[in-house]
Amino acid sequence: MRKSLKHLSVSLAALALAASASAQAQTKPEDLIKYRQSGYSFMAWNMGKIKAQVVEGTAPYNKDQVAAAANLIAATANSGMGALYAPGTDKGKGWKETRVKSDFFKEQDEVGKIAVNFVQQANKLQQVAVSGDQAAIKTQFGEVGKACKACHDKYRLEE
Amino acid sequence: MRKSLKHLSVSLAALALAASASAQAQTKPEDLIKYRQSGYSFMAWNMGKIKAQVVEGTAPYNKDQVAAAANLIAATANSGMGALYAPGTDKGKGWKETRVKSDFFKEQDEVGKIAVNFVQQANKLQQVAVSGDQAAIKTQFGEVGKACKACHDKYRLEE
Repeated sequence: MRKSLKHLSVSLAALALAASASAQAQTKPEDLIKYRQSGYSFMAWNMGKIKAQVVEGTAPYNKDQVAAAANLIAATANSGMGALYAPGTDKGKGWKETRVKSDFFKEQDEVGKIAVNFVQQANKLQQVAVSGDQAAIKTQFGEVGKACKACHDKYRLEE
Repeated sequence: MRKSLKHLSVSLAALALAASASAQAQTKPEDLIKYRQSGYSFMAWNMGKIKAQVVEGTAPYNKDQVAAAANLIAATANSGMGALYAPGTDKGKGWKETRVKSDFFKEQDEVGKIAVNFVQQANKLQQVAVSGDQAAIKTQFGEVGKACKACHDKYRLEE
């Protein structure tokens, strides 16, 4: 049951990728790269706030700020960023040279699984952040970090 | 009543700005500028999807995609971006040279009013997008555009 549901999610994600990719056809590859770099960068700012307030304690915990940050991360994860990896965006410069590896475009099943897991973990962080349970937020923040890293390790070039 | 509520919102926004600005104190000015440019750029991608699907009809309308785009815009509006305008970020290069005018840092009451209106209009777009009422989405999309433009006209340098 769990397996078939997961398979369905992956198929749906692939379908969403394909459908929205076609709608981005008129956008220049360098703009698509710029948009995805922007999305990851703005998420990084929001991850940083949660890290500082809940994981490292270098900033005072503010429940509303952490919930807003988790909300932004989930909204980004659910925004259909797969469309930003349209054909022609495997190389090129957005704000800076893309770091995506060519395998990303060849291993769509694996990419789909990683993407679905990222969305699920981000959605869970959004829910947990609203609770204000800092221990649970810290744990789930770690899961989101792992989900990010799964893609970085396989499909992102070192800087 | 309406006026005092509005005044309260503006004061709260100013307070939120101040509180979260201090938490960003350790982040380098160029990174703060990069983060805010990223946030606006990723919003622009999402505004573009709604524009194409609902306003111009250059892409087929997809209710889920439009709702996800509006959700991202609202999440960004509510993420406390005011903190990214910390002292020292009035000039400098993030992904590119900042276009913020110096008046932005001198007219905090006016900036606060514009920011509060932007958040309200973005939240309303998020609600309307879920309804699937394309005429209402189109109208509210226009309101969000006006809210963006109010700040651009006053506080953004021409390119």
